[in-house]
Amino acid sequence: MPTYDEARTRVIELAQFAASRGWLPATSGNLSVRVSHTPLTFAITRSGADKARLRPEDVLLLDADMRVQGEGPYKPSAETTVHVALYQKFDCGSIVHVHTVYNNLASELYADRGFVEIRGHELVKALGHWEEDAVVRIPIVPNWADLKRLGWAVAEAAQADVPAVLVRAHGVYAWGDTPDDARRHLEAVEFLCEYAYKLHLARAGSPMIG
Amino acid sequence: MPTYDEARTRVIELAQFAASRGWLPATSGNLSVRVSHTPLTFAITRSGADKARLRPEDVLLLDADMRVQGEGPYKPSAETTVHVALYQKFDCGSIVHVHTVYNNLASELYADRGFVEIRGHELVKALGHWEEDAVVRIPIVPNWADLKRLGWAVAEAAQADVPAVLVRAHGVYAWGDTPDDARRHLEAVEFLCEYAYKLHLARAGSPMIG
Amino acid sequence: MPTYDEARTRVIELAQFAASRGWLPATSGNLSVRVSHTPLTFAITRSGADKARLRPEDVLLLDADMRVQGEGPYKPSAETTVHVALYQKFDCGSIVHVHTVYNNLASELYADRGFVEIRGHELVKALGHWEEDAVVRIPIVPNWADLKRLGWAVAEAAQADVPAVLVRAHGVYAWGDTPDDARRHLEAVEFLCEYAYKLHLARAGSPMIG
Amino acid sequence: MPTYDEARTRVIELAQFAASRGWLPATSGNLSVRVSHTPLTFAITRSGADKARLRPEDVLLLDADMRVQGEGPYKPSAETTVHVALYQKFDCGSIVHVHTVYNNLASELYADRGFVEIRGHELVKALGHWEEDAVVRIPIVPNWADLKRLGWAVAEAAQADVPAVLVRAHGVYAWGDTPDDARRHLEAVEFLCEYAYKLHLARAGSPMIG
Repeated sequence: MPTYDEARTRVIELAQFAASRGWLPATSGNLSVRVSHTPLTFAITRSGADKARLRPEDVLLLDADMRVQGEGPYKPSAETTVHVALYQKFDCGSIVHVHTVYNNLASELYADRGFVEIRGHELVKALGHWEEDAVVRIPIVPNWADLKRLGWAVAEAAQADVPAVLVRAHGVYAWGDTPDDARRHLEAVEFLCEYAYKLHLARAGSPMIG
Repeated sequence: MPTYDEARTRVIELAQFAASRGWLPATSGNLSVRVSHTPLTFAITRSGADKARLRPEDVLLLDADMRVQGEGPYKPSAETTVHVALYQKFDCGSIVHVHTVYNNLASELYADRGFVEIRGHELVKALGHWEEDAVVRIPIVPNWADLKRLGWAVAEAAQADVPAVLVRAHGVYAWGDTPDDARRHLEAVEFLCEYAYKLHLARAGSPMIG
Repeated sequence: MPTYDEARTRVIELAQFAASRGWLPATSGNLSVRVSHTPLTFAITRSGADKARLRPEDVLLLDADMRVQGEGPYKPSAETTVHVALYQKFDCGSIVHVHTVYNNLASELYADRGFVEIRGHELVKALGHWEEDAVVRIPIVPNWADLKRLGWAVAEAAQADVPAVLVRAHGVYAWGDTPDDARRHLEAVEFLCEYAYKLHLARAGSPMIG
Repeated sequence: MPTYDEARTRVIELAQFAASRGWLPATSGNLSVRVSHTPLTFAITRSGADKARLRPEDVLLLDADMRVQGEGPYKPSAETTVHVALYQKFDCGSIVHVHTVYNNLASELYADRGFVEIRGHELVKALGHWEEDAVVRIPIVPNWADLKRLGWAVAEAAQADVPAVLVRAHGVYAWGDTPDDARRHLEAVEFLCEYAYKLHLARAGSPMIG
């Protein structure tokens, strides 16, 4: 487990990476790194900060009830509920949530089906699937306005062997044992969502990859 | 209110941000920050400058009649009329105007309807709409050659609760209380225009998002 | 007129700009700045150099017969014929030639018609057309394998009031009085080619912009 | 032939270039530079490293049996089999393997045909084809799960006069006499795959370029 200071540095690094890709538009998105298990505490970006210009005080230390540990003027993002729900379900060490045009498009095109299915694509290895003919289904959940409900929905849909969940017309949550793992999973999901959309265009509506 | 010097620095920062995204092609676009209310004065990029390489003298201090305050060789952009009209209608502190392929495409695809409608998308929160099932309509106005008329048209179409107006086959005006607010609104509109176009392609002509 | 040293610096700056956009893939493209009128001499990138990593010795001083002025191991690009033909037809000070996916697509989609027509778009102002309802036609010429013939074809197609010519499935030549003008014209043409292609996709084959 | 130290530096430079384009997502891809012919040794990126943040110890010296020369904690990428097979077939000095959305799309759209055909396009010159009316076919091989088999398949499909092979829904291998040649070939193939896909969209399924 990292210390709070280490976790804060990791959060800022994750934010700079995701911002450099344009994945945190209009101060959206949030990123976190777990600090302790029992009780749960984690470092997470505050609400409303521009992630490309994050300062140390923009990263808060929270507990499972979303109470800020320590002093400061800032409040946590309302979507912190989803991070809590995922940290409570899985033994993961880091969670990233970003908004991109392609994950939004994939979540919308395959919303009725409830998942984006990736079949026969090399990059599922980056999501932990090395078996031949692996099929990966990334779940899509509705964009519940009630953020407690959104947290439950994401955690309920989340599968142990697929480290990401799409929220329809909103964005993606991806996670991993370490910040680097979460980042690798996110990069793979973004690649696959862009690929799924562009293959869909070329095939005039074929609903699945592969 | 910022001083003129502070406003000039904010204008240059906005320009560097927008230029880094490729949103100010071919010396197009203009960006401004309000300096005073009564009388109205504001700092704005001069005509013809390459916004990626802006020098302090490329930012002019103007009044409501577009007269340059102070000395210098440069004249204001002709489109300054739109900034004046918006500053006079709203109590906003900053206005950004950029040309992008996606805001141009959205303005053209939905020109007959007169607006781009965003329904059921998370990023309308970045435009200030936090209500459930929010529907946001970004107005589209014709690209009047007479720039006084363009200023009136943009200001007339502008709604208090939707901080942006598209000009057909031209670009977007977005504004906010502060330069950061204007930038956040611009980022959200650009994301939504790209999303609207790409969803339109996938759905073979479905005219609306959501 | 710049000196050779100044022209060389301008060529390197143009190359760094175009390379940063990805417009000079696989060591393609060439860029030049005029040094004298009578006789014609100009500074131009050598054949085969990676334009993102240009050194001063990669920029040659040539005359109208493509003879290298001064000593050095490098030879000029074979496409220098096109620069000579354009410098001899027009009184321009700089020429840029780049390969991009979008100018290639536009040149291919509208090859039979022989031009890309831009109608009712704001960015034709960046090409020098400020009149209301301006219509700009960017000529497309075949990609002649004989580079002397290509030079003649580009110069013959080139119009005094449209500072660019597309070569089919190859790239674009754009020019201007100064390196900044050539760059502005290039940026505008690239924007318009991308816009033309993407509008074409959305309209399922409507052949013209506007 | 470069020394191991020189080859390691070249590998890191290649990785930084490809990572800066986003061509090595989610720690995917691998890049190598030959150090000796008889016996074959080469420097190659290790398995799992983030190529944008490569350290010298992330580049291994291997022989034809994929044994690591020297000490260290890291193992070679399993796909090193493909590098060995190509170095044994050709006298090339460098091999690059990347995953991109466009090379994946081209490999999928033209999988049944077994190649991407480029006809009448200027950029085939960057692949070494200067003859008029050159036609270049980039082979596509299945993405064999058995990596020895994949290596044989890539080497068997590889043609002496076309320095790249696509692996379906996986990525591309490109090579050259020097690291700069391999990079130029890769840039040309990526450009052509993006162009092939986007022209395919515009032509609603026309299977070939040109």
